[in-house]
Amino acid sequence: MPDPRPIGVFDSGIGGLTVLSALVEELPGEDILYLGDTARVPYGTRSPETVLRYARRVSDHLWQRGIKALIIACNTASAHALEPLRSAGQQAGVPVFGVIEPGVEAAKAVTSNQHVGVLGTEATIRGQRYQSMLQAAGIRAQAIACPLFVALAEEGWAADPVAIDVASRYLGSLKGGPDTVILGCTHYPLLREAIAEVLPGVSLVDSAHATAKVVSTVLQEQNLENARTEGGNTHFLVTDNVERFERVGSQFLGRTPAPVELIDLDAPAGLFAEEA
Amino acid sequence: MPDPRPIGVFDSGIGGLTVLSALVEELPGEDILYLGDTARVPYGTRSPETVLRYARRVSDHLWQRGIKALIIACNTASAHALEPLRSAGQQAGVPVFGVIEPGVEAAKAVTSNQHVGVLGTEATIRGQRYQSMLQAAGIRAQAIACPLFVALAEEGWAADPVAIDVASRYLGSLKGGPDTVILGCTHYPLLREAIAEVLPGVSLVDSAHATAKVVSTVLQEQNLENARTEGGNTHFLVTDNVERFERVGSQFLGRTPAPVELIDLDAPAGLFAEEA
Repeated sequence: MPDPRPIGVFDSGIGGLTVLSALVEELPGEDILYLGDTARVPYGTRSPETVLRYARRVSDHLWQRGIKALIIACNTASAHALEPLRSAGQQAGVPVFGVIEPGVEAAKAVTSNQHVGVLGTEATIRGQRYQSMLQAAGIRAQAIACPLFVALAEEGWAADPVAIDVASRYLGSLKGGPDTVILGCTHYPLLREAIAEVLPGVSLVDSAHATAKVVSTVLQEQNLENARTEGGNTHFLVTDNVERFERVGSQFLGRTPAPVELIDLDAPAGLFAEEA
Repeated sequence: MPDPRPIGVFDSGIGGLTVLSALVEELPGEDILYLGDTARVPYGTRSPETVLRYARRVSDHLWQRGIKALIIACNTASAHALEPLRSAGQQAGVPVFGVIEPGVEAAKAVTSNQHVGVLGTEATIRGQRYQSMLQAAGIRAQAIACPLFVALAEEGWAADPVAIDVASRYLGSLKGGPDTVILGCTHYPLLREAIAEVLPGVSLVDSAHATAKVVSTVLQEQNLENARTEGGNTHFLVTDNVERFERVGSQFLGRTPAPVELIDLDAPAGLFAEEA
């Protein structure tokens, strides 16, 4: 039986729009609720405890709106909140997806020399999730936090010579090493060209498309697909600064995100109220 | 009668440590409570309403700890929250200082060609506070948002060639224009050398020392000074990620900030509880 409920996608802010694009491409008939926690972005410099607290609050809101699946479209939140959210989702019968596992699987399929680089935020790299999953598969992992990449992507400087300077500065130690690099932050696909120029011949893996394919498979297996095969709508929710979300988000989405609704998550309620 | 109560200093995170340093230099006998809202940093990309809400919550906490003066050591919060906090402070008999007015006064005293550049966060520049104060004094203002400067300073790349590339990219339009530039974000003094290399001969004004002098004068006028003239202590409060505050903060302070206490501002209370 088809399921008309929307899919929930959450990110700390704007970066998850790269995952949203892949999802719309893969599942064009689905309605999607995208929530960007722009009042608390970035998660990448927060402590693990705070990332988990924020992720719970956001997910709680999406659950209350009646989603049929939840995608954590933020590497930092995937690194620190996937298990607790997945457990809560299981109780509610809602499958929960992170972006790290699909990215690792894609990298495993691509690497020949069993040496993979991982680029991400401070919190993602310190969380060691990518590294431990790769190492468990017998793959050597080399991880680098690249915080300036986020600022470059949001500034619209992805194609600027400065982006190549910054990429050279961060990625010098990867030259002649890994044959595959995971773009472990949803902002980084925007810098794909600059990264490719610094690391010629290296395969760049982004989790967005890999995640969208996993979601599609699971929805099908669990009979959660929408009856439609096209014409799905996306509704955007943000916790602050609609103007900036529209302006900067258009660089990520290729169009201005709309409609955008401003919501307040400061008043805790629902599933996690007692812990918020 | 001398007043032994501490001075409260608040910033969205780490940048205000440049103001703290100037304050300790100017008033070495005073005890200081520094609060960095590291769970919600940066304020520079938030909406004015959210900046005000966060600033009220932080100030409220400091008031409850019994401070005798409050310094908003964050340009974005000074741009959007000074008046409401000053009004609240007046009721409580606590003088409240921002960093924008002292910076503007310093620039007015320095410029010869009556043309001043202003560098700041997105929210500070959009807030127009610097521009309107300069224009009211008959000075031409040219403002540029430089969001990457914050990431560069926190990454410890202030002296890196990349910093000069980024500064050139942002500041090209100022060449041959203003003879004075205000570093209108507390992070930017760390990039002073890179900015000076791009704008040789231009006077760079940072608000930190100007603000410290104003505070010193007012404390003296209002008999709020500590009896001590040296040996004051600073106590640090942060709302998240003590480890990162200590690590990145040491670049700003020249020493590791200590002692650092983790506090939770998510539970609203006190003066602004009904609005939080």
